Amino acid sequence: MSSIYNGAVLRLSVFGQSHAEAVGMTLDGLPAGVPVDLEALQIFLNRRAPGRNDWSTSRREEDCPEFLCGLKDGKTCGAPLTAIIRNRNTRSSDYEQLRCLPRPGHADYTAQLRYRGFQDVAGGGHFSGRLTAPLCIAGGILLQMLDAKGIRVEARIRAIAGIRDDSPFTESVAEKAFPTVSDEAGEQMKAAIQAARAEGDSVGGIVECVIRGVPGGLGSPMFDGVENRIAQLAFAIPAVKGIEFGSGFQAAEMRGSENNDPYTVEDGRVVTCTNHAGGILGGITTGMPVVFRVAVKPTPSIASPQQTVNLDTMQPETLRITGRHDPCIVPRAVPVVEAVAAIAVADLILEG
Amino acid sequence: MSSIYNGAVLRLSVFGQSHAEAVGMTLDGLPAGVPVDLEALQIFLNRRAPGRNDWSTSRREEDCPEFLCGLKDGKTCGAPLTAIIRNRNTRSSDYEQLRCLPRPGHADYTAQLRYRGFQDVAGGGHFSGRLTAPLCIAGGILLQMLDAKGIRVEARIRAIAGIRDDSPFTESVAEKAFPTVSDEAGEQMKAAIQAARAEGDSVGGIVECVIRGVPGGLGSPMFDGVENRIAQLAFAIPAVKGIEFGSGFQAAEMRGSENNDPYTVEDGRVVTCTNHAGGILGGITTGMPVVFRVAVKPTPSIASPQQTVNLDTMQPETLRITGRHDPCIVPRAVPVVEAVAAIAVADLILEG
Amino acid sequence: MSSIYNGAVLRLSVFGQSHAEAVGMTLDGLPAGVPVDLEALQIFLNRRAPGRNDWSTSRREEDCPEFLCGLKDGKTCGAPLTAIIRNRNTRSSDYEQLRCLPRPGHADYTAQLRYRGFQDVAGGGHFSGRLTAPLCIAGGILLQMLDAKGIRVEARIRAIAGIRDDSPFTESVAEKAFPTVSDEAGEQMKAAIQAARAEGDSVGGIVECVIRGVPGGLGSPMFDGVENRIAQLAFAIPAVKGIEFGSGFQAAEMRGSENNDPYTVEDGRVVTCTNHAGGILGGITTGMPVVFRVAVKPTPSIASPQQTVNLDTMQPETLRITGRHDPCIVPRAVPVVEAVAAIAVADLILEG
Amino acid sequence: MSSIYNGAVLRLSVFGQSHAEAVGMTLDGLPAGVPVDLEALQIFLNRRAPGRNDWSTSRREEDCPEFLCGLKDGKTCGAPLTAIIRNRNTRSSDYEQLRCLPRPGHADYTAQLRYRGFQDVAGGGHFSGRLTAPLCIAGGILLQMLDAKGIRVEARIRAIAGIRDDSPFTESVAEKAFPTVSDEAGEQMKAAIQAARAEGDSVGGIVECVIRGVPGGLGSPMFDGVENRIAQLAFAIPAVKGIEFGSGFQAAEMRGSENNDPYTVEDGRVVTCTNHAGGILGGITTGMPVVFRVAVKPTPSIASPQQTVNLDTMQPETLRITGRHDPCIVPRAVPVVEAVAAIAVADLILEG
Repeated sequence: MSSIYNGAVLRLSVFGQSHAEAVGMTLDGLPAGVPVDLEALQIFLNRRAPGRNDWSTSRREEDCPEFLCGLKDGKTCGAPLTAIIRNRNTRSSDYEQLRCLPRPGHADYTAQLRYRGFQDVAGGGHFSGRLTAPLCIAGGILLQMLDAKGIRVEARIRAIAGIRDDSPFTESVAEKAFPTVSDEAGEQMKAAIQAARAEGDSVGGIVECVIRGVPGGLGSPMFDGVENRIAQLAFAIPAVKGIEFGSGFQAAEMRGSENNDPYTVEDGRVVTCTNHAGGILGGITTGMPVVFRVAVKPTPSIASPQQTVNLDTMQPETLRITGRHDPCIVPRAVPVVEAVAAIAVADLILEG
Repeated sequence: MSSIYNGAVLRLSVFGQSHAEAVGMTLDGLPAGVPVDLEALQIFLNRRAPGRNDWSTSRREEDCPEFLCGLKDGKTCGAPLTAIIRNRNTRSSDYEQLRCLPRPGHADYTAQLRYRGFQDVAGGGHFSGRLTAPLCIAGGILLQMLDAKGIRVEARIRAIAGIRDDSPFTESVAEKAFPTVSDEAGEQMKAAIQAARAEGDSVGGIVECVIRGVPGGLGSPMFDGVENRIAQLAFAIPAVKGIEFGSGFQAAEMRGSENNDPYTVEDGRVVTCTNHAGGILGGITTGMPVVFRVAVKPTPSIASPQQTVNLDTMQPETLRITGRHDPCIVPRAVPVVEAVAAIAVADLILEG
Repeated sequence: MSSIYNGAVLRLSVFGQSHAEAVGMTLDGLPAGVPVDLEALQIFLNRRAPGRNDWSTSRREEDCPEFLCGLKDGKTCGAPLTAIIRNRNTRSSDYEQLRCLPRPGHADYTAQLRYRGFQDVAGGGHFSGRLTAPLCIAGGILLQMLDAKGIRVEARIRAIAGIRDDSPFTESVAEKAFPTVSDEAGEQMKAAIQAARAEGDSVGGIVECVIRGVPGGLGSPMFDGVENRIAQLAFAIPAVKGIEFGSGFQAAEMRGSENNDPYTVEDGRVVTCTNHAGGILGGITTGMPVVFRVAVKPTPSIASPQQTVNLDTMQPETLRITGRHDPCIVPRAVPVVEAVAAIAVADLILEG
Repeated sequence: MSSIYNGAVLRLSVFGQSHAEAVGMTLDGLPAGVPVDLEALQIFLNRRAPGRNDWSTSRREEDCPEFLCGLKDGKTCGAPLTAIIRNRNTRSSDYEQLRCLPRPGHADYTAQLRYRGFQDVAGGGHFSGRLTAPLCIAGGILLQMLDAKGIRVEARIRAIAGIRDDSPFTESVAEKAFPTVSDEAGEQMKAAIQAARAEGDSVGGIVECVIRGVPGGLGSPMFDGVENRIAQLAFAIPAVKGIEFGSGFQAAEMRGSENNDPYTVEDGRVVTCTNHAGGILGGITTGMPVVFRVAVKPTPSIASPQQTVNLDTMQPETLRITGRHDPCIVPRAVPVVEAVAAIAVADLILEG
């Protein structure tokens, strides 16, 4: 199929290649009259942009969206909203050698199989992490809409390189350059990233997202449940290889008496004493926070030499990747996870 | 939205409630001329059916599908294929008390929020695990179609109650009553299930699915990748709370140099030396086996008393569930996981 | 794609072949708590059923739906609603000769091309007019829902065999056996039908549908406008070959000054003085009645010998159709047109 | 729903408002490697552009698409293809008065109902005929793809202001400035257009489209038939109020013996002697040319004063439209009809 997400109400089309004229997105199905604060959006987009500090790539990209349509006097006008980001600061020659030498862990080889050589290889083409920028435009707008309804979507680094931050997620980390709750754990993680970089290697991690203020009763059983939708969207983020809700994989080791969340009454409304369900039962929200975690694999682009196959000669060859790359994309993935969560939840809210 | 899965080519509608006249499914989009071996299908359905042994519920249900249309002389005729299973052996009175006493870990409360009291509570209604029977009809037919193309979908119990079976998955376990690779691990798991049952409790686990023979080059980046699709379908299985592909959550602790799968040439074709990607890169199949695992939560229905809230009086109340329930649904989930995998892969194959 | 209609909120799956075990439908997306009056539904279905009088076929079919799920105590329960009608009184042998002798005007030849001989030819298979019975189950339920909201969907015979009934459509004709406004025109039409039958021939006509009480502001520009949706559904009725809204094809001969509907105020609300737009501008309802007409071709099954080609021998052959067939299906198409209109409008209403 | 067309394989997102920064489209689902001849595309787009002669508006717009992504070295690369056209030469002040004075026959009033005042009124916003430019980008690309497969999509003016051109459509009229087959009929039509303009009025007409070379066996019964799809797309063209296939509304006056197309053998393949079915039976192509006609209403923007209602004061008011407008959009609609036909047929071909 395609690079279009067909939600219950929202439709999101994400387009572009890393080194094409532009990347961009069209968001359709938003009601008219939703205000969009472009400054706040830029701040959100900056959280994803690379080159801001020493644990990420030294490339600097400006993610300044140009809105082509869909806004009128700072509000949505009911028509599809399209925004693009021009691609700049690209060094296409970095990628020339990769046409026949697929990078391990990247989509080079699968793209070759699917698109028979016609794919745009420069910068990873349509598979590039750069495509998460338009995802964040859509998500950033929807985060504002949700926020106005008292729904807060917040993600954090839960683990990197096996170092966990299990502190309770009670305060926002959105303004932190390195969004962990525990700064101490954060420092350890940064050290692990630097260590990997020094060895020409990379590390992965876990991002956790909590969505507070979601009304109960949203979603459906079977194929269109809240988990189904968030999962479908989360796997649009390159490098995500797993997702779990609530107690998730831990539930596999728990007993029913532990994992079941007992009901109680609080301030006159039904709540659960624990939230192992992650706010979702039978695909429908319980009214408790929706909680999920995604596993982010280590950046496939590493400086160390790797074994690949030359697709022209069908001979093994050693590949050396020379471009600038994040030794860990987990920090930059945090706002992207918020973005996909916002898309899913905004769609649920609009569906009603 | 709905209980309809819109694949790229296949459309699957699953309908029914646990105690309605019937549960069933309509599968649309199959090419004409696909043979359906009803006996083989019945054997597959029996793997899911309850009451076959002492670690599952003592209820006995016959999952005998009646085909209403779509087949002609044992082959698909191009028209939608509909099959139903009549519900029998139901004791609706078991559930009468649950109308206002939502069971922890079940969808009773969320159904009440969404359907405002009009939902069919008996037996869990449309949320019941019974709805996995029609999923298995669809999946069972598609497994046959895939098998004829040399694509084998096989799942196994990977863990129950924290007891893992890490044996390599090189032989089929489809004919085992308790589908682990290691019989020793299986015995330990069964003991853990019995122990939980004896204490009025339940246990969860992990099911692993491996799909061999999938051609490379199937799928898409972004929202319609192989992971997105399998995940969307897998969360249709009640009790699934997490999914991971390849190294999955383990990747979060690995370095790029470990997790990247080096390419090599084998029998004249490009393969990877390892398969941490689980056969998927950039949402597209690599040609290596597709590997995923789902986390299955412990059965929420347990004999031990649980705390809930009476929705009429808004007072806390102690709930005792008296029906017959599996202390562990993981063994019965194994063919259901195969079924959803078959749906996803058959759709990919038909999309081409 | 498929026999599933994906509306904005409603999903309708129609399944079955003329001589399969059953025909049926699954309607998904209805809110919980919608009452369904089964007696009123039966009366609606009877309007479509054949064999009620001398201008239609002498076959008698009982269109008695069996509801398998989705209803609880006479109301929708939020789960998919499935109903089937068992096929009876079928004479499959009537159709044996047609396997290799495609009937002109029928789908026999195109089905052969698409399904390569695996299609179910008996009674027209999935292409049979019998499939309009499940369409009417869905439509009949939705007509009741709309009626409760003050929205009345009514169709009438506008023309048969070139004989027109241009009387203003101000009174319901639903209870008439021959649903014209002018009984005089109706008599002439019946005579034309009988004349055609006597000559082993058939006639076509036009059905007009008016939907009153539709709120303004429903629908969208571009691909999902009200016209787009009604048209997509109307062409699901076998034999429909054209559709027009408001002044329709007549607009092609009008001037802008005639065809534009001037605005005025009536009872404090904006209305148009005329309704050439058929209640739709820019794909969105104006609040005036939605008006459309469909062209129904003459029944392709006629008693007169016809020229066809034997697909086995590739030789021309003369075909004689011996079964019992309506010489004019326009009267029976009237409730079917109401049904598809109800599906489109109910979906618009639920979308909001 | 939305301004996104979800075909079986193709996805088309059309965005923009008449006076926004740009209009544009994203076409997704095209195979990689499809060549796009940008010069030929420009020639096609010029057929739609206004201001080329004296029977259309004096506005001159350059429809020069900028391709943002999806092309690589002149061929599709498998990623979504996005192109935009910047809006220039717009006089927004022309439209200021229309905010509270809805123009009869336009979507001003329905947009106000749906978007509650937040819509972009300038130039008709997202409802403008200008949105057919991106439709033509998509269609123009697909026409090239179809042409390379021997499928020719050609439309012509069949009637304007009641003047018909019933000449057989055997030669291409694509290069004619006024695309009728009969130049004589064309001259009469032009005279009728000029007469209407002189009187401050406008006229409508009929566009006929013939698609030759379509293989038989494409499409489906029920909701996704060829008629359903073409109709859904055709009503995306503003001003289209009716569509008919083959003999269409004429079939309503024909007998079965006339309307049925007898089969015969020609050059070893099955064909029909006539083509009243318009190349479609049971929603599936027969292999004969697909033929349809759309009714185009007279341009709603006319110079003559019209009656409307001031939405602020709720008082009747006389409206005078002063902008430059086509007295007849039928000639410019011809390539747009070809474009939507190409979208539908390309999708059928890709679906296979």
